[in-house]
Amino acid sequence: MSGATAATTGSDLHKDLGLASEHPAASESAPSGLSMVVFSGELDKALAAMIIANGAASMDLPVNVFFTFWGLNILRKGGPVHVQGKKTTTEKMFGSMMPRGPEHLHISKMNMGGLGTRMIKKEMSKKHVMSLPALMKSAQEQGVRFIACTMSMDLMGIHKEELIDGITYANVGTFIDAADKSRMTLFI
Amino acid sequence: MSGATAATTGSDLHKDLGLASEHPAASESAPSGLSMVVFSGELDKALAAMIIANGAASMDLPVNVFFTFWGLNILRKGGPVHVQGKKTTTEKMFGSMMPRGPEHLHISKMNMGGLGTRMIKKEMSKKHVMSLPALMKSAQEQGVRFIACTMSMDLMGIHKEELIDGITYANVGTFIDAADKSRMTLFI
Amino acid sequence: MSGATAATTGSDLHKDLGLASEHPAASESAPSGLSMVVFSGELDKALAAMIIANGAASMDLPVNVFFTFWGLNILRKGGPVHVQGKKTTTEKMFGSMMPRGPEHLHISKMNMGGLGTRMIKKEMSKKHVMSLPALMKSAQEQGVRFIACTMSMDLMGIHKEELIDGITYANVGTFIDAADKSRMTLFI
Repeated sequence: MSGATAATTGSDLHKDLGLASEHPAASESAPSGLSMVVFSGELDKALAAMIIANGAASMDLPVNVFFTFWGLNILRKGGPVHVQGKKTTTEKMFGSMMPRGPEHLHISKMNMGGLGTRMIKKEMSKKHVMSLPALMKSAQEQGVRFIACTMSMDLMGIHKEELIDGITYANVGTFIDAADKSRMTLFI
Repeated sequence: MSGATAATTGSDLHKDLGLASEHPAASESAPSGLSMVVFSGELDKALAAMIIANGAASMDLPVNVFFTFWGLNILRKGGPVHVQGKKTTTEKMFGSMMPRGPEHLHISKMNMGGLGTRMIKKEMSKKHVMSLPALMKSAQEQGVRFIACTMSMDLMGIHKEELIDGITYANVGTFIDAADKSRMTLFI
Repeated sequence: MSGATAATTGSDLHKDLGLASEHPAASESAPSGLSMVVFSGELDKALAAMIIANGAASMDLPVNVFFTFWGLNILRKGGPVHVQGKKTTTEKMFGSMMPRGPEHLHISKMNMGGLGTRMIKKEMSKKHVMSLPALMKSAQEQGVRFIACTMSMDLMGIHKEELIDGITYANVGTFIDAADKSRMTLFI
């Protein structure tokens, strides 16, 4: 288990986590709004995240959404994307096994080989609940800031050109800085 | 995938999310207490949510619990309930496949076809940990506000008469409003 | 289902939850830092928790991590540990089925019988992302407070000598007290 013994110095950690010295430890103005980590990449959890994000944005609250690990897949473009530079075999494998964007996610329970997901989507359409792509578009239009975790991108071999437009690229330090200025924090 | 293209206007979204204009964007008094989303419908996560809710309520903090998606099943009554009006085939299927109330939930790991759940319940009883129904009752008696997400109810075809008594019916706007006035926010 | 009918009095609950009378309901000084519940025991979620904890600690923020339910396994020592007193058959079974410490966790998705976990660990090492044991060590060195949930320990039959050094033992009341003094709260 080589991962368990990899040595990283303190300053590497600081750099790895995106902690530039210009990040103040605490904010000066009163905290407001919502900052959330979207770690999960399932349809139902992504819907919950986007419904909460849109709701808060509609109430004129600042909203930051930090997509990391499996959550990064929510930001992927629909089709295969030609990327600059070469991907390793492992990175290609991760890329092809993980869902490409909001149209390809499955629900976390009762998926039944995709049947459950299709049924939920049909019910949503019938009952005029916005689809996940529509909720994401609405969130971005309302000023919700989407942040893609660059450490996760590096780990999974996902490149910027594979992700949707209008997003910020940053590391966990940026999330913590935003969360520390927010009133509400969630991990989904 | 018709769900992905369903058009919803901004004002529909506003209405869908339960964002009435009387919701102020920020609270005036100092934030206090706990607001949580219970999205998951597994026994172990429901127990964690209710133990935290009871703990905070015991410390005289205001607590709001917003049950949505699978979490809605925690609020269901034990047996089949006759509902006014007709359910669609899909709604009946959802209703019969999802667990009916706290006594019918399973743990999220090591369930082993129900054996793990039975073992955990037996250990809880033996070690005098309150059961989930008892924790829910205690929470309600201590003034914890249970909120059922009406958008999820509509989506899954769950009617008010299928849920336990003493709960509030509202949408995500109500949760955000409560969370914005809370010190602690969790998504379970 | 005997667990569902176990009677516990109010004062038992108070004691069970670790709510000593010296816990003030609200903090006097301005809230700061991060308090999180680590409920999950999977490698990817534990990594996310420790990356966030290290990031916040690097920014000189106070951090409390409350390990409960499956999350308790992250704090277990690597090998079998001889414990004082006898474990019941159920406790022995739980103990042997659950992962022993950070080196033995699996990822929550795409594990593929352990292959996915090995691949992720290899990528982490190759891309100089700190391993989970290294992140835990770094967190403790930076002053992150690890709290083991004693109610979960009792439920699963896990003894103090089975967990790593330098941790606090407490119940949910201690978490709520810390969270109520924090700016950010997460449930992972």
